[in-house]
Amino acid sequence: MTPVTSIEGALRDALPAAAFRELEPRYLEEPRGRYKGQGGLLIAPGNTEEVSLAVKFAHAAGVPVVPYGGGTGLVGGQIAQDGIEPLIISLERMNAVRAIYPEENVLVAEAGCILQDLHTAVEKEDRLFPLSIAAKGSARIGGNLATNAGGLNVLRYGNARDLCLGLEVVMPNGDVWNGLTRLRKDNTGYDLRNLMIGSEGSLGIITAAALKLFPIPASEGTALFVVPSPEAATELLAMARSHMAEGISAFEIMHRQGWEFLQETMSELRLPYDEAPEWSVLTDVGLAKGLDPAEALETLFAEAFEAGIVTDGLIAQSEQQRTDLWNIRENIPEGNRRIGSISSHDISVPISRIPEFIREGNAAMAALGDVRVNCFGHLGDGNLHYNVFPAAGKSRADYEDLRPAVKSGVHDLVHAYNGSVSAEHGVGRLKVSDLEKYSDPVKLAALRAIKQALDPKGIMNPGVILRA
Amino acid sequence: MTPVTSIEGALRDALPAAAFRELEPRYLEEPRGRYKGQGGLLIAPGNTEEVSLAVKFAHAAGVPVVPYGGGTGLVGGQIAQDGIEPLIISLERMNAVRAIYPEENVLVAEAGCILQDLHTAVEKEDRLFPLSIAAKGSARIGGNLATNAGGLNVLRYGNARDLCLGLEVVMPNGDVWNGLTRLRKDNTGYDLRNLMIGSEGSLGIITAAALKLFPIPASEGTALFVVPSPEAATELLAMARSHMAEGISAFEIMHRQGWEFLQETMSELRLPYDEAPEWSVLTDVGLAKGLDPAEALETLFAEAFEAGIVTDGLIAQSEQQRTDLWNIRENIPEGNRRIGSISSHDISVPISRIPEFIREGNAAMAALGDVRVNCFGHLGDGNLHYNVFPAAGKSRADYEDLRPAVKSGVHDLVHAYNGSVSAEHGVGRLKVSDLEKYSDPVKLAALRAIKQALDPKGIMNPGVILRA
Repeated sequence: MTPVTSIEGALRDALPAAAFRELEPRYLEEPRGRYKGQGGLLIAPGNTEEVSLAVKFAHAAGVPVVPYGGGTGLVGGQIAQDGIEPLIISLERMNAVRAIYPEENVLVAEAGCILQDLHTAVEKEDRLFPLSIAAKGSARIGGNLATNAGGLNVLRYGNARDLCLGLEVVMPNGDVWNGLTRLRKDNTGYDLRNLMIGSEGSLGIITAAALKLFPIPASEGTALFVVPSPEAATELLAMARSHMAEGISAFEIMHRQGWEFLQETMSELRLPYDEAPEWSVLTDVGLAKGLDPAEALETLFAEAFEAGIVTDGLIAQSEQQRTDLWNIRENIPEGNRRIGSISSHDISVPISRIPEFIREGNAAMAALGDVRVNCFGHLGDGNLHYNVFPAAGKSRADYEDLRPAVKSGVHDLVHAYNGSVSAEHGVGRLKVSDLEKYSDPVKLAALRAIKQALDPKGIMNPGVILRA
Repeated sequence: MTPVTSIEGALRDALPAAAFRELEPRYLEEPRGRYKGQGGLLIAPGNTEEVSLAVKFAHAAGVPVVPYGGGTGLVGGQIAQDGIEPLIISLERMNAVRAIYPEENVLVAEAGCILQDLHTAVEKEDRLFPLSIAAKGSARIGGNLATNAGGLNVLRYGNARDLCLGLEVVMPNGDVWNGLTRLRKDNTGYDLRNLMIGSEGSLGIITAAALKLFPIPASEGTALFVVPSPEAATELLAMARSHMAEGISAFEIMHRQGWEFLQETMSELRLPYDEAPEWSVLTDVGLAKGLDPAEALETLFAEAFEAGIVTDGLIAQSEQQRTDLWNIRENIPEGNRRIGSISSHDISVPISRIPEFIREGNAAMAALGDVRVNCFGHLGDGNLHYNVFPAAGKSRADYEDLRPAVKSGVHDLVHAYNGSVSAEHGVGRLKVSDLEKYSDPVKLAALRAIKQALDPKGIMNPGVILRA
């Protein structure tokens, strides 16, 4: 491949001056500081035609292209840290909401729209766009789609893939695929849309999307249930869904360890029990007109208590109480950060095997050394954050030698449970060798063939998902 | 390519005798009688390994392979009517339910399972598999997935694609991709699953699938609403969804013409009004515990009546009344058949443009000649059956010359509305030239590149979706 300097002159002639931006350090960094970009040329095109034109130049000359959204990705997908100096294409100027169709529950937005801005835009039309992640204030929808973002409302509404009806994409040769359909049903050929979603910029650049909207639930409620075991938590999930079906919008499991970290590092936080429960579940419901969430949660509590799968609980009676309960869950990552993990894992396993996985994982970790495990997360999606910490009084530095064994111990176990070592963050550049190690070889061969077919010159985000 | 006779001996040596079946005429016919197969060798493997072995022989020798499910497809995807004699692989013997996981709402089934058998199997576990189509008594789940089947419950539960978590697929070279994951979240590489779903057997043979189950709704209800116009119907849809969200499981629009055909051809059918309403909507709701469907529908009726978007209506007060109301809708296709259409179309357009589309379509049809239009279907999905009939007293034979103009008139209009000329039936061999005519050329080029990449010898269901 050829460095971007070879086409810089041509690009400056072809694109308006407004499309050029200074390559500030923020474009070469990512949130966890693991990757550092080595330079390149940054452009911020004003429309799809300019993206197309720029990619055509890059394609003709064989210049690597790195698409750039909000820069919030956690696996290095937005940073080319080595290799030939790339053309970095930021979508930040393409941030128009092209249209909202409240009557058909559709939003058409350009890739550079910030997720939170989309929430605000559709709320004015009394609609909900349910994709929500911690980084929503800076993440851009094009990046959310490129990485098939998950987040808080997957249980009810699905991930980014499930929320997309159509795409506009600049292909690796610069051609524009106009697939910006708003159709709910369209069986005309292979599913190019879902191939692009989750391809992390390695098969093309998403420039706009048609997205699904939803009615805002008539009323919402929150409860904290103390459960005797992870088994009981999975049974409670099934019971809750048989009561309220899609009404269950979040179902999060928490372990005592997470609460103890909060008690230790954020003592100002109000916790509802003096002694942290071994296992608990935080659930959110959003119900239709005519249903009272608190009442529905009380009915669920009574039945679950009777069945012995819930031993105690709290049902929020006000918005303040809802906020207080969610504050516990939402502060767990910050508590973890203050303690400092040996190794953290964003994994998924089949939901019914979660209890077994936790038991076996904890035994394996205990066998490795004196560690503490904080296992919590989106039980409803089978997605756990399985994070391993130093024993009390020790620091992560004491465990440097142990870290590789911890990581591969967790990942090997996930693999043995037919799970995923990247539930929602993607592969990026961070997990390329995990993909090689754990993927079905037939799948991997198919992925390589698809990359070769759609990007024969290998210019689109090289080194992401597949080794360049 | 090479005829299957070239590998018949080798296959007979390699596979057990039970895998060979007589090629009865039914394997060479399809429901609408448009396609007629020309022979070949039929095998019905007993397991995935046998499918793999057979495809390896075919791949090595360059023999075309036609996967065969229930044979209910409507676009000729299961029939190779010309070209080299193929190896026909029927999945009929692979009809085991491998596992049901009620607690995680997952079913793992082999491709040859009949759809209705899956309904029965999961009902025993108090679960719902919502995919439902008219041909459910003979259609097989592998074919449903290969064609991304739609059907009755798409509004609430999505199409076949939305109901699948994982696949096992024999690839065009005979390798087995074990992608039979039950994970709700897995971001490890390109979305091979959705590429296979809807590829109509042209990228591989689905041999098993992990499918999503749902709780059975606590209570269900049905209502017929008379609406003043298609505009009012789309407004009612939005209002209904803001009342009951996902609780709305069907939302079907009907036109007076369909009722009049019923009155004319099936006079024994009980219709609730002496004079057929110009436009009406049939809706089904499935609600959570604590809600009374009849009450919820009455609340909706009152608000819609107040807003002037509903002028009359009936809310079923018993299962018998529900059945009676659905009998109207479900008999419309039979009424159409008895009248005999000039041309029928399974199309979708963006939901908010449906009223405009109907108006413009009807005007265009009237300009072509003296015809009657029966437009009805899944309004909630934007999927209409737009069928054109002879004037009263005339027969379809009188319109032979007009048929091509009717068909292209409807399809051109659908295209102008950014719609789809195949909403749910797929492309098969029937709509290959429609795909060529109406698809975005960049999409078409990508589809061809993908086919070439995954099936370079072009042996998998040649001529389906893409010209062989």
